Amino acid sequence: MRLTPLLLACLFALPVAHAAEPPKHLSAKEILDASPDADWRTLDPASTLYMDVPGGRVVIELAPGFAPAHVANIRTLAREGFWNGLAIYRSQDNFVVQFGDADAEDTAKAKPLGMAKTKLPAEFARTGDGVSFTRLPDVDGWAPEVGFVDGFPVGRDPKTNEVWLAHCYGALGAGRGGPPDSSNGSELYVVTGQSPRQLDRNITLVGRVVKGMELLSTIPRGPEPMGFYENATERTPITAIHLASEVPESERTPLQVLRTDSKTFAAATEARRNRRDGWYVRPAGHIDLCNVPLPVREAKR
Amino acid sequence: MRLTPLLLACLFALPVAHAAEPPKHLSAKEILDASPDADWRTLDPASTLYMDVPGGRVVIELAPGFAPAHVANIRTLAREGFWNGLAIYRSQDNFVVQFGDADAEDTAKAKPLGMAKTKLPAEFARTGDGVSFTRLPDVDGWAPEVGFVDGFPVGRDPKTNEVWLAHCYGALGAGRGGPPDSSNGSELYVVTGQSPRQLDRNITLVGRVVKGMELLSTIPRGPEPMGFYENATERTPITAIHLASEVPESERTPLQVLRTDSKTFAAATEARRNRRDGWYVRPAGHIDLCNVPLPVREAKR
Repeated sequence: MRLTPLLLACLFALPVAHAAEPPKHLSAKEILDASPDADWRTLDPASTLYMDVPGGRVVIELAPGFAPAHVANIRTLAREGFWNGLAIYRSQDNFVVQFGDADAEDTAKAKPLGMAKTKLPAEFARTGDGVSFTRLPDVDGWAPEVGFVDGFPVGRDPKTNEVWLAHCYGALGAGRGGPPDSSNGSELYVVTGQSPRQLDRNITLVGRVVKGMELLSTIPRGPEPMGFYENATERTPITAIHLASEVPESERTPLQVLRTDSKTFAAATEARRNRRDGWYVRPAGHIDLCNVPLPVREAKR
Repeated sequence: MRLTPLLLACLFALPVAHAAEPPKHLSAKEILDASPDADWRTLDPASTLYMDVPGGRVVIELAPGFAPAHVANIRTLAREGFWNGLAIYRSQDNFVVQFGDADAEDTAKAKPLGMAKTKLPAEFARTGDGVSFTRLPDVDGWAPEVGFVDGFPVGRDPKTNEVWLAHCYGALGAGRGGPPDSSNGSELYVVTGQSPRQLDRNITLVGRVVKGMELLSTIPRGPEPMGFYENATERTPITAIHLASEVPESERTPLQVLRTDSKTFAAATEARRNRRDGWYVRPAGHIDLCNVPLPVREAKR
C-alpha cells in the first residue's frame, strides 16, 4: 500500500466514518462545530493588540488580570506608537522571538518611553482570590495544579493561593534584566518553541498571541546560541503595534475565543485527551496544559 | 532603568559572575565546556541522513534500535535517491513539516520505491531487554517513566517492559494511513512545535534531527488546518537525502553528540532542572523530557 498525501491528510485529524452506526465519540472538531454562541467570548478591544509586520497582522490578547501594571504601560506605549518602526531583533530556534528597541542601550539613539513608566513591579503571580480557575485533571511537573483562567493557561498553588500565567507556545512576556522588577513592557518576547515552563514565575507574562503565530514562528533564526541578529538588515520590521480600541472599527480583526470555562471547552479537551477517532490505537489518557488548543474564530460583524 | 538588548542577552542564559568566590553551582554551559571527550559519541555514518534543502543541510540520526525495519527501508530509499528532487509538501504551525512524494496518490506519476519494501510492521515500541535506559526522576503525564536511550528521548512502561521514542521537537516519524502498519518510511515528518506526545506509540518514529532544525522550523506554513500547500510552487524542494556513509568523507558534516548515559549529561540536566545562575528567582525543580537539550558539537577531523 502506498501512502499518499491525501491519505496522510487523515493522519492526525480526521475521524473515520462508520456507515452502519453513528459515532459514539465526537471529535474535538465536531464538538466545536456544535457549540452554542454563548460558549464564545469576543475579544475586548481595549485589551487586544494588533502587531502589524510585513507578512500580516498578529493579534494578541493582553492579560490585565495577571499583569495590571505591565498592561497599563503597554497600552500607553501602544498609544504613543512606541513600537512603530522598531523591529524583531532576536529569533532563537525552539525558544522565542524578541522585539522592541534594539538601540535602547545607546542613550543617544534610544526611543523615549514617553508617558510610560520606567519602573514597574514584578508581576510573576497573582492571588487566586476572585479568580475563576478551570482545573485540568492532568498531572503537571511544573506546577501543583494547572488549568485555565479567562482563556489563559495557568499554574496554581493551592497552598499559597497563587495563580500565574504559563509559558506555552504563543505566550507574550516582558523581557527583564537581572533584578526581578527590571521589566517595563517595552521589550517583549513571544514563545515560538517547546514551552519553556522553567520561566514561569521568573518573568512577567502579559498576554498571548491569539492569531498570526505563523508570522512570528517562521522568522529566520539569528545566530546561536541566543538568536540576536548581527546585522540590523536581518531584523523583521514592525510596521505598528496598536490597541484594537484605537483602530477604526472597519480596520479591526474581530475575533472570538472559546470560553475555557464552557462545557464545549471541557468536552473538546476530553476528546483530545482520549482520541477515539479510529486512527489512534492507544489514546493517551492525558493532555499537557500547553497541548490544549485554544480555539479562535471570526466574530460575526 | 532601561532594558537593552545586551542586558536582555543575559535574560535566559548567562551566569552571573562572582568575583569574590568561585561559583558553587556550575551552569549547564560550564559543565559542557569541562566535559571529557569520552562523554561524547561520534554519529555513525551508516545511521546518519543528510537532508539537503536550499538553505543548507539537515543532519538526522536514525534509530535502528527502535525501528529496524523502517530504518532498513529508509537506507534503501536514500541509496536509490528516492527523495532527491521531491519536496516538503506540508508545514503546519506548531506541529510538523512533512515530506516525500506529493504525487504518490497518482499511480501514473508516483515515484517507484525500487528495492524498498512496500509493507512494514508497525514499530511503535520495542522491548526493554538489552536496552540501557537512563531514567529522568521527573514526573511525566504521558508515560509511566521517561528518560533516554542512546541519545533519544523515550518513554518506558516497567509493567510491559516496553520502551518507545517520544515525540519531542525534532523527532522524525514515518507517516501512516488508517492501518497501524501502513507506513513504509517514504513519507516522513519532523516535529516543529510543542511536543505532540499523544502520537507516542501510535506511529513509528525513526530518528531525530541533530542539526539544522531551523531550516525546517522556519518553512512558511501551508493553509490551516493541516498545512498542506495548495500549489506545488509553495513546496520546499529537497535537493537530496543521502546516507552519510554514501557521501565522500570530505563532504560529510562530522558531529558528536553528548552521551545521555554520561555524568556530564546528568550534571547538565540537573543544572537546568534547578537553575542557580542568579537570574532565576525560583528554580523549577523539574524538567520535562522534551525540554532537555541534547548537546551536539563538531567532531575533530
